Amino acid sequence: MKRILLTIEYDGTNYSGWQKQPCQKTIQGEIEGAIFRAIGKEVEIFGSGRTDAGVHALHQTAHFDLDLPVPTSKIPDILNNALPADIVIKGAEEVVPDFHARFSIKRKCYLYQIYNSQIKQAFLANRMAWVRKLLDVKRMKECAKILIGEHDFRGLCSANTCATDFVRKIFAINIKKDGEYLSVSVQGSGFLYNMVRIIVGTLVDYALEKITLNDVKDALKNGDRSKAGQTMPACGLYLQDTIY
Amino acid sequence: MKRILLTIEYDGTNYSGWQKQPCQKTIQGEIEGAIFRAIGKEVEIFGSGRTDAGVHALHQTAHFDLDLPVPTSKIPDILNNALPADIVIKGAEEVVPDFHARFSIKRKCYLYQIYNSQIKQAFLANRMAWVRKLLDVKRMKECAKILIGEHDFRGLCSANTCATDFVRKIFAINIKKDGEYLSVSVQGSGFLYNMVRIIVGTLVDYALEKITLNDVKDALKNGDRSKAGQTMPACGLYLQDTIY
Repeated sequence: MKRILLTIEYDGTNYSGWQKQPCQKTIQGEIEGAIFRAIGKEVEIFGSGRTDAGVHALHQTAHFDLDLPVPTSKIPDILNNALPADIVIKGAEEVVPDFHARFSIKRKCYLYQIYNSQIKQAFLANRMAWVRKLLDVKRMKECAKILIGEHDFRGLCSANTCATDFVRKIFAINIKKDGEYLSVSVQGSGFLYNMVRIIVGTLVDYALEKITLNDVKDALKNGDRSKAGQTMPACGLYLQDTIY
Repeated sequence: MKRILLTIEYDGTNYSGWQKQPCQKTIQGEIEGAIFRAIGKEVEIFGSGRTDAGVHALHQTAHFDLDLPVPTSKIPDILNNALPADIVIKGAEEVVPDFHARFSIKRKCYLYQIYNSQIKQAFLANRMAWVRKLLDVKRMKECAKILIGEHDFRGLCSANTCATDFVRKIFAINIKKDGEYLSVSVQGSGFLYNMVRIIVGTLVDYALEKITLNDVKDALKNGDRSKAGQTMPACGLYLQDTIY
């Protein structure tokens, strides 16, 4: 028996998120199905965390236990042949038995992509959020400073969370603009439900002068969701890295 | 009454090609539907040519006649609001009444994109053809030289064409490789059914040493389709430009 850690890339457009659900096409469900078809074992895989419907991953990780003598180096090819083209196993490695894709994690990094242009781009429909009004990166950076650090983020997550502890630490928020392409990368100890999408929505709404820096401070201090910005659409969000 | 020329970009993944067909989602059908919903006119639009199911366009053109006082500059926004996000009207201009999107065309340019890598990329599933074996661009360029110029291309098109004249002129074939991304752009006077996909398949099969230069010459000289290369998948093909 060995514990295998998979590195996975997926376009989440056509899936109801990571987590297996009855009668739904999900990333976890597809990968478990591929393992069953390709290796003949019914296993459960444990992801570093869930991603929502339409959210993508450049680097998701998940572990499972395998009691067959399949060479670890062959696992990506074997599974990719059994997977749809929008889910790709980029790597597989053997890890120690007490390693856990979710509980061993130290940091997570998300990338949020915005196409900031007067006119839409057809090929970005499910890949980036489209914001028509010009976004001032300087203002976004100014707002980001308030969010960095350890805070109670109950004002910047969706109500339908089952979390009880809302304290999370944001290590860094990097905002880059290259022509019409704007990206926000957020590195943190962990994230609440919709937290990255609301963080980015807060930066965007501050840049668009829909909210003030005091609103953002209020959202953090008093946990008032109504003071923070919009929840950005799922399609712009990418799980970028999981750091153990 | 004015004649309007639209410039259109689309991700063809979710469509049964350009041409309107009963009970099928097509690009032409969607745009005519958007014109009806947004402007209230039932019109027929005339494209520069058809694209097949799954084929994309960076720059397709189509004209239609409008007898309402809608400002031409407002047409892109008006239609984009009524169109799905994977079809975008990039521009609209008034043209002379005897201009025809199809018959006035001088040259057409197609782009074919290949992801040439050991491992698939999830986000390119419907955007580029995946070729695993390393392609030698030098060999592709060598083969391309044979195809440039005026030839009878009956050996490099699909049998189910209704063309009677198979002579076409290829002005240029440009092949570029940037890391794992390989692109072939083909500029010609016009193209037969599947001709670009077979031209690129011929370059690829020669690079992979599946066919010889003499096979390619035979395909051209004797119109023998079996001597030319494979028909590359639709997902890598982009209508790149229409030149009037």
